[in-house]
Amino acid sequence: MTQMEIGRGKSGRRGYGLDEIGIVPSRRTRDPEEVSIAWQIDAYRFELPLVICPMDSVVSPATAIQIGQLGGLAVLDLEGLWTRYEDPEPLLAEAASLDDAAATRRLQQIYAEPIKEDLIGRRIEQIRSSGVTTAARLSPQRTAQYHKAVIDAGADIFVIRGTTVSAEHVSGRAEPLNLKQFIYELDVPVIVGGCATYTAALHLMRTGAAGVLVGFGGGSGHTTRTVLGVAVPMATAIADVAAARREYLDESGGRYVHVLADGGMTRSGDIAKALACGADAVMVGSPLARGSEAPGRGHHWGSEAHHLELPRGARVRVGTIGSIEQILHGPSTTADGSMNLMGALRRTMATAGYSDLKEFQRVEVVIAPQG
Amino acid sequence: MTQMEIGRGKSGRRGYGLDEIGIVPSRRTRDPEEVSIAWQIDAYRFELPLVICPMDSVVSPATAIQIGQLGGLAVLDLEGLWTRYEDPEPLLAEAASLDDAAATRRLQQIYAEPIKEDLIGRRIEQIRSSGVTTAARLSPQRTAQYHKAVIDAGADIFVIRGTTVSAEHVSGRAEPLNLKQFIYELDVPVIVGGCATYTAALHLMRTGAAGVLVGFGGGSGHTTRTVLGVAVPMATAIADVAAARREYLDESGGRYVHVLADGGMTRSGDIAKALACGADAVMVGSPLARGSEAPGRGHHWGSEAHHLELPRGARVRVGTIGSIEQILHGPSTTADGSMNLMGALRRTMATAGYSDLKEFQRVEVVIAPQG
Amino acid sequence: MTQMEIGRGKSGRRGYGLDEIGIVPSRRTRDPEEVSIAWQIDAYRFELPLVICPMDSVVSPATAIQIGQLGGLAVLDLEGLWTRYEDPEPLLAEAASLDDAAATRRLQQIYAEPIKEDLIGRRIEQIRSSGVTTAARLSPQRTAQYHKAVIDAGADIFVIRGTTVSAEHVSGRAEPLNLKQFIYELDVPVIVGGCATYTAALHLMRTGAAGVLVGFGGGSGHTTRTVLGVAVPMATAIADVAAARREYLDESGGRYVHVLADGGMTRSGDIAKALACGADAVMVGSPLARGSEAPGRGHHWGSEAHHLELPRGARVRVGTIGSIEQILHGPSTTADGSMNLMGALRRTMATAGYSDLKEFQRVEVVIAPQG
Amino acid sequence: MTQMEIGRGKSGRRGYGLDEIGIVPSRRTRDPEEVSIAWQIDAYRFELPLVICPMDSVVSPATAIQIGQLGGLAVLDLEGLWTRYEDPEPLLAEAASLDDAAATRRLQQIYAEPIKEDLIGRRIEQIRSSGVTTAARLSPQRTAQYHKAVIDAGADIFVIRGTTVSAEHVSGRAEPLNLKQFIYELDVPVIVGGCATYTAALHLMRTGAAGVLVGFGGGSGHTTRTVLGVAVPMATAIADVAAARREYLDESGGRYVHVLADGGMTRSGDIAKALACGADAVMVGSPLARGSEAPGRGHHWGSEAHHLELPRGARVRVGTIGSIEQILHGPSTTADGSMNLMGALRRTMATAGYSDLKEFQRVEVVIAPQG
Repeated sequence: MTQMEIGRGKSGRRGYGLDEIGIVPSRRTRDPEEVSIAWQIDAYRFELPLVICPMDSVVSPATAIQIGQLGGLAVLDLEGLWTRYEDPEPLLAEAASLDDAAATRRLQQIYAEPIKEDLIGRRIEQIRSSGVTTAARLSPQRTAQYHKAVIDAGADIFVIRGTTVSAEHVSGRAEPLNLKQFIYELDVPVIVGGCATYTAALHLMRTGAAGVLVGFGGGSGHTTRTVLGVAVPMATAIADVAAARREYLDESGGRYVHVLADGGMTRSGDIAKALACGADAVMVGSPLARGSEAPGRGHHWGSEAHHLELPRGARVRVGTIGSIEQILHGPSTTADGSMNLMGALRRTMATAGYSDLKEFQRVEVVIAPQG
Repeated sequence: MTQMEIGRGKSGRRGYGLDEIGIVPSRRTRDPEEVSIAWQIDAYRFELPLVICPMDSVVSPATAIQIGQLGGLAVLDLEGLWTRYEDPEPLLAEAASLDDAAATRRLQQIYAEPIKEDLIGRRIEQIRSSGVTTAARLSPQRTAQYHKAVIDAGADIFVIRGTTVSAEHVSGRAEPLNLKQFIYELDVPVIVGGCATYTAALHLMRTGAAGVLVGFGGGSGHTTRTVLGVAVPMATAIADVAAARREYLDESGGRYVHVLADGGMTRSGDIAKALACGADAVMVGSPLARGSEAPGRGHHWGSEAHHLELPRGARVRVGTIGSIEQILHGPSTTADGSMNLMGALRRTMATAGYSDLKEFQRVEVVIAPQG
Repeated sequence: MTQMEIGRGKSGRRGYGLDEIGIVPSRRTRDPEEVSIAWQIDAYRFELPLVICPMDSVVSPATAIQIGQLGGLAVLDLEGLWTRYEDPEPLLAEAASLDDAAATRRLQQIYAEPIKEDLIGRRIEQIRSSGVTTAARLSPQRTAQYHKAVIDAGADIFVIRGTTVSAEHVSGRAEPLNLKQFIYELDVPVIVGGCATYTAALHLMRTGAAGVLVGFGGGSGHTTRTVLGVAVPMATAIADVAAARREYLDESGGRYVHVLADGGMTRSGDIAKALACGADAVMVGSPLARGSEAPGRGHHWGSEAHHLELPRGARVRVGTIGSIEQILHGPSTTADGSMNLMGALRRTMATAGYSDLKEFQRVEVVIAPQG
Repeated sequence: MTQMEIGRGKSGRRGYGLDEIGIVPSRRTRDPEEVSIAWQIDAYRFELPLVICPMDSVVSPATAIQIGQLGGLAVLDLEGLWTRYEDPEPLLAEAASLDDAAATRRLQQIYAEPIKEDLIGRRIEQIRSSGVTTAARLSPQRTAQYHKAVIDAGADIFVIRGTTVSAEHVSGRAEPLNLKQFIYELDVPVIVGGCATYTAALHLMRTGAAGVLVGFGGGSGHTTRTVLGVAVPMATAIADVAAARREYLDESGGRYVHVLADGGMTRSGDIAKALACGADAVMVGSPLARGSEAPGRGHHWGSEAHHLELPRGARVRVGTIGSIEQILHGPSTTADGSMNLMGALRRTMATAGYSDLKEFQRVEVVIAPQG
């Protein structure tokens, strides 16, 4: 890897964001109708390589069911409003109506309400009863406390998601989460992250995770870079973690750990580029926050937006543009990449000459600054 | 070719856009009056190296004739309003008067009207009767169905233009277009594209095409990059395809296939830069959409703007600045590169010391970010 | 060091700003509560690696005491209003209420008032009487004249700060300041700068300074680059000066000279990045100018803003967002990196897997253009 | 010289603009009062390394005298209003009062008035009678016709300035200007340009010119890049032409041809950077167009703005900020680099540790993107 010298004794690689690359078609083209974008992780198969972020502005039990029926996988945030309140609808409505200036403070108050363990079970059961694959998220800090409730309720896929999740958390506290042991003892597949480097991802893969999240857990409004200074551009992070996947595949004698790009993909072209860099699927939030059924009512925020001491994301207005179905499957009535996300992906692959996602990870890309 | 590492196992070249380069004058200068910008493809000679995009906002039978008389070549879109409606003028007027927010949806409706085969012939004959060189465009999807009507009507040059056109379209359908056989059997020269790489272009040249279009078929308002993630910066694409021209010239024992830069050139300087990178001619749309005779009445849109499932371009307001003649040949009354496009090209070549287009393709360029 | 060719015979390194880099977490994570951000220079230990700029809009005797009590070190400008006026409060109020267009001229008038030597002593004594570590600043031009008053009043740390301070000032005047002799004769530790290169910093270290300031003395509104053309991007400058620290540590047989990044850090992420590049502490102004106790009342200006012949900085409006305590220690009610600066730093280090500042200087960074 | 590959078979150097570099102070500093910025070309010595552009918005006979008395050299445009009209003041007033939209067209009309040969002599004599060094400009196209009038009137320095001027103009016309013979026969020193490359500059130096202009003749509002696509970033161009100066100095056995950076320098920092790249002096216009005595009354335009067929520059509003004396020598009342240009240059050199311009050409620079 080429290191650039920042100053004497301090070097760094040049990282690339998805905005900086373009997909280069091969010498073949195909019919979009003949392209497969199906994705399978563990025993679960999805028509779409699309996981929806555990963010209250997008995923409620109702939208989780709808998204599952449309071919994707939605992850419910078990530390959000649905486990803090019996009826979160009035609070979702209030969150969506706040002035921008006051939003952070009020979100801090709303989310100060304690989590109710019994609500965890009931929300999962509600989704599960519809027959769709059920996925739910906890932060690493609360996984030890609440995971039993999650499993008992019958979640299919368990997601541990924080800004940065490492396989080796050093702590003076009595019992930090031992990821490896935890996953070993669990019966359901675990998706864990964020991470952004080859080494961190490889260690996460060795814990037995079924999938790793690439990125630092931020939604569209996240400010991790501004507040913490932490940033790894996404195209580079995906490619590095995909390389860890290949390394671990060999090292483990055949375990394929899925790479999920997580964060910052707002347009259909971003999704195609993430897959082109080596991701198996993408985790997105804001594009679906624009759906008419989205609980955020045209607004979008993540769990980092209501941190009591150090919020690292803002509630952002994204607007409402159509139904969730139309956003996923079209028809699109706009040219800005916000609708028919999956039709666009099929067309990109067809235009580039590829017929399935695994092949498409090898498509040629070019570094192409905007403008 | 230098590859930059995006991440482990994923590399890409750095591509350059026309905006990123500047033309460097040689140690000679010339008189603009003594510069030739004539261009010849197959048996057809043009005073200007300028082909006008098949877009309804620019090319009608009337403006095709006018542009031909002014020295250029206009391509009529045979899948546009002129072959869908007996009298498209009221619809062009309506398209130009729509609100931006509603434009895409209404264009989708207007273009949902079926194509009438007899109108194909009549529009071509109308242009042909004026005596100018007649060129018309079909998409690859409809070429098989309609090309006979085009040839029977006496078109001089046949243009097959889509977002990406490859020599090898893989399809499960009964009869995808076999470009090589199609072109072999046709009596008129064929210009085909878009494409953007050495390999894709070389394969297109081997089909027998007289010219290839470099770019992905987008006009000024196209959003291919945002919607599909597909992008190859134009300066790099032109140079690569020009290299394929040289390779094919040798391989074929002397067939010179013309390279036409297509898309994104809005100012006179862009045209000069495209030729400086190796193009034989340019295909432009938006600069002429600003003409007072342009059917778009100060608006501009391409065929990608009315796709029923996934529009990939917007109708954009470009304004009206003067007659088409003035835009091509001046005099200019503005300093922004939008008028006297051909006078500007002559002056660039004179300033740089070149007297014809073929020599000018070798002019030195510098990588010069804006600002 | 890689040199880029600007033109024949003129080359330069590529310098990087803090905006261009991102911190890359290691494969470990830690608890923020277990991270130490304490800093010690000479005999003085601080809970925070934070020195506050000698700028009248931030540091008064009162805020110097408050900042000291909160764990930082504030430096009083001895060439500011507090040594020119018996009661500067009305002038501070006026400075804060001026129109932007008129601000520079009026500041020039206000600061034309001569410095009163007796006020130097009284201001220092006032801070000192509170028990916090007392630091005060003079420019190199006035150090010879006033330093006795500073020392006599009992300042703990002496700061000599100008746009550029060199160890070798060439002058035809009778007695330019001989830094080496001056520092040798002084009993208190001296922090001196700005400087931005390995060589200049190494020479400053050889004068016996306890710390050097990296940067050119500008606050948020400084225009050194525009007015003088002088600029060295901060990430590169810090790394180079940190390399000089290592060189001098060896050359001197163990003298550790502290590197203080000075200028342009407005968000918590910037502070983390400066330390990641090798700084021991940071000197900031504008973040605290946003405190409700700040003398600038929501405005910010530095000594370069009132130069009589060539002002090189503007009075900028920064707004008031909360108490100084909240800005330093939270809780934050905004996601833009302007509050809980020290909590954010702890979290960055914990997220990246580091437990003290010295280790954190080695954290991996990536070159990551914004966007 | 490192070539970057744009595409197969087409490469280019990376050029750098003045905006992209920063001056790096050495390990010494000096007193600004002890810095010399004097410049001498041929027999003429100037206190300032500053030549003022032949643009009607800045240089009239009256301001030429004033600028000469302040230490600079102003060049009168002999193809501007002062040689087309007996009394141009009403037209200057009108030009300054035009709407932006209408300005180009009206300037074309105003400048369509023929040049009067007798006015050439009278304007030069008027300046000459004041005792300041007298300089006047013709375009290469009109030099043959009018140069006798210039010489007869006693101009001290003759400037031949066009967008691009080459030593080898190829033309089918009877008598294109033979620069070498022309300069040989002339008794006064000739400054000629624009040019931007090593080779073109070397050939111009061989014509016997006393100085060459680096750049393409554009003022602040010029649009050469947009209209013609011609562009060479200034820092690179200056360094290359300075290298040609060294080559020619050796080749000619000691003739030192001055390098004048021409165009795009609007702030004091730009001037310092141009000299740091190797220029002997700078030619500027827009900074002085802001003077209260400037004929443009707060507006600025160059000869390229009124070209009848292809204007390549706009009349731009620059505002009025103070007297020409204040702009050159201060005191400055603003921090934006627009006043006390020469005081700023002295301070830059002092800060960087240099005492004369020839040494300062060797100062270290860093590539430092804005932001």
